[in-house]
Amino acid sequence: MERIDGKKISSQIKEEIAQEVEQLKEDGGKIPHLAAIIVGHDGASETYVGHKEKACQQVGFNSTVVRFEDDIAEDTLLRKVDELNNNTDIDGIIVQLPLPKHIAEQKVIEAIEPRKDVDGFHPINIGRMVIGLPSYVSATPAGIVELIKRYNIETSGKDVVVIGRSNIVGKPISILLSQKSESGNATVTLTHSRTKNLKEIVSRADIVIVALGKAEFLTADMVKKGAVIIDVGITRVKSDKTKSGWKLLGDVKFDEVSKKASYITPVPGGVGPMTIVSLLQNTLKSAKGEIYSRI
Amino acid sequence: MERIDGKKISSQIKEEIAQEVEQLKEDGGKIPHLAAIIVGHDGASETYVGHKEKACQQVGFNSTVVRFEDDIAEDTLLRKVDELNNNTDIDGIIVQLPLPKHIAEQKVIEAIEPRKDVDGFHPINIGRMVIGLPSYVSATPAGIVELIKRYNIETSGKDVVVIGRSNIVGKPISILLSQKSESGNATVTLTHSRTKNLKEIVSRADIVIVALGKAEFLTADMVKKGAVIIDVGITRVKSDKTKSGWKLLGDVKFDEVSKKASYITPVPGGVGPMTIVSLLQNTLKSAKGEIYSRI
Repeated sequence: MERIDGKKISSQIKEEIAQEVEQLKEDGGKIPHLAAIIVGHDGASETYVGHKEKACQQVGFNSTVVRFEDDIAEDTLLRKVDELNNNTDIDGIIVQLPLPKHIAEQKVIEAIEPRKDVDGFHPINIGRMVIGLPSYVSATPAGIVELIKRYNIETSGKDVVVIGRSNIVGKPISILLSQKSESGNATVTLTHSRTKNLKEIVSRADIVIVALGKAEFLTADMVKKGAVIIDVGITRVKSDKTKSGWKLLGDVKFDEVSKKASYITPVPGGVGPMTIVSLLQNTLKSAKGEIYSRI
Repeated sequence: MERIDGKKISSQIKEEIAQEVEQLKEDGGKIPHLAAIIVGHDGASETYVGHKEKACQQVGFNSTVVRFEDDIAEDTLLRKVDELNNNTDIDGIIVQLPLPKHIAEQKVIEAIEPRKDVDGFHPINIGRMVIGLPSYVSATPAGIVELIKRYNIETSGKDVVVIGRSNIVGKPISILLSQKSESGNATVTLTHSRTKNLKEIVSRADIVIVALGKAEFLTADMVKKGAVIIDVGITRVKSDKTKSGWKLLGDVKFDEVSKKASYITPVPGGVGPMTIVSLLQNTLKSAKGEIYSRI
């Protein structure tokens, strides 16, 4: 069994990005610039935005954080998005979710210029991904694909089972892995709460991707010997064995499943660290005009 | 075995639409108006556009056909699309494909205002479909879903296998059927040329959707007894038994598979007749502002 080390890979990629930014600086190229909008003072959101800002600094990107109180009018927020859309120095725009209830989240997402939508949440980027055009792929599915690539895990012709049909993980990763592409060409089955014979279906899979959000859902009796296991779940549970009183659990019962798996991602330290890296990669691509040519 | 009669269902739906248009006329509502652009004189394209025009007349829609020679400049075409985008009387715009090689097809598709994209080819409509937002679904997958609904075929919890991952059939139908929705909730496996154990996978399916374009590909030994078979393929082959010297074959070996199936679509007369109906339904939805509110 090989443990897929998302922490190590994400550090490697950050280093690669930092080197590329250095080169861009030397060549007088465009330094990537990520703008994040945060509304209100939600603890988790503050943490995520903080991590993203720090990651930008680490690789040499410019970053801007725009803060609003949670009673901001939708219009004001939309105007700020538009201002960032029109600011030619900004390559990527993210709006930290969730937003307060009085703001229509989807409207804000669709207000972001698709060329700067480095979160890949705009329907136009999702649609372009589906039909195989260059697009920004959202952080978690992009991170999973990157891990699979870096560990040289063959996907072509493999049976993949995705558990969970969320818009931000299950659906996009099932599309990406079945795509006619180097890291695709798998035969993908997308399963969910209405799937009847889940255990039987999962037991046939060469690669299982679990994105359900149910702690330790996937047990050893469900998986085939030698399967590749990608665990996207993160659930915080009480623990008397950690200083904080909490620990993080994935959707996979790691101790037992790891004994049967050929490759497995731990939680934490598997898919998680890859998400910020995907965001950096998208922002770099934007600065270089790789997805859409720079206007 | 019940034969799914696409011809009958499509006539029924056209009648329903005609009645609704009558009512709209009485109420002084907006009469749906479809504009089709055709470039060049390709025989098949002429036929398709002719059918669409005729269908509009049958249900009482207004229709406009814009014709260009095949040496038209891309710019001129884009300007016409823009003119139709801005014409408030036009509810739906379709550009008959394929276009001549010197014109960037995707650019033209993306130039159509998404609110009038009744073919559902604009990435924004594909993306909205993926995340479960109201959108125009393209003709063939929409037609399949409609047939499944009208025949009260249960999809929830069923194992569906889709054969073929095309952008216009395989991918969208696999997304629609796995969606959390009345006609979705199935466990869908998307198979394609790289799938290794196709026969085994197909033999487990409750519903098989074949969209491969290989005449009589699906044989009786591949399917489970009682399976629902949806045949999207149309291949024209020589025949000495028809007046024209040609006949149409589906992707399913109908004579033998129909003996094992619970429901099956014939070719012709199955999915085919539904595609124009889907286009009419989308145009009606546009006129009524059902997907996007009318601006």
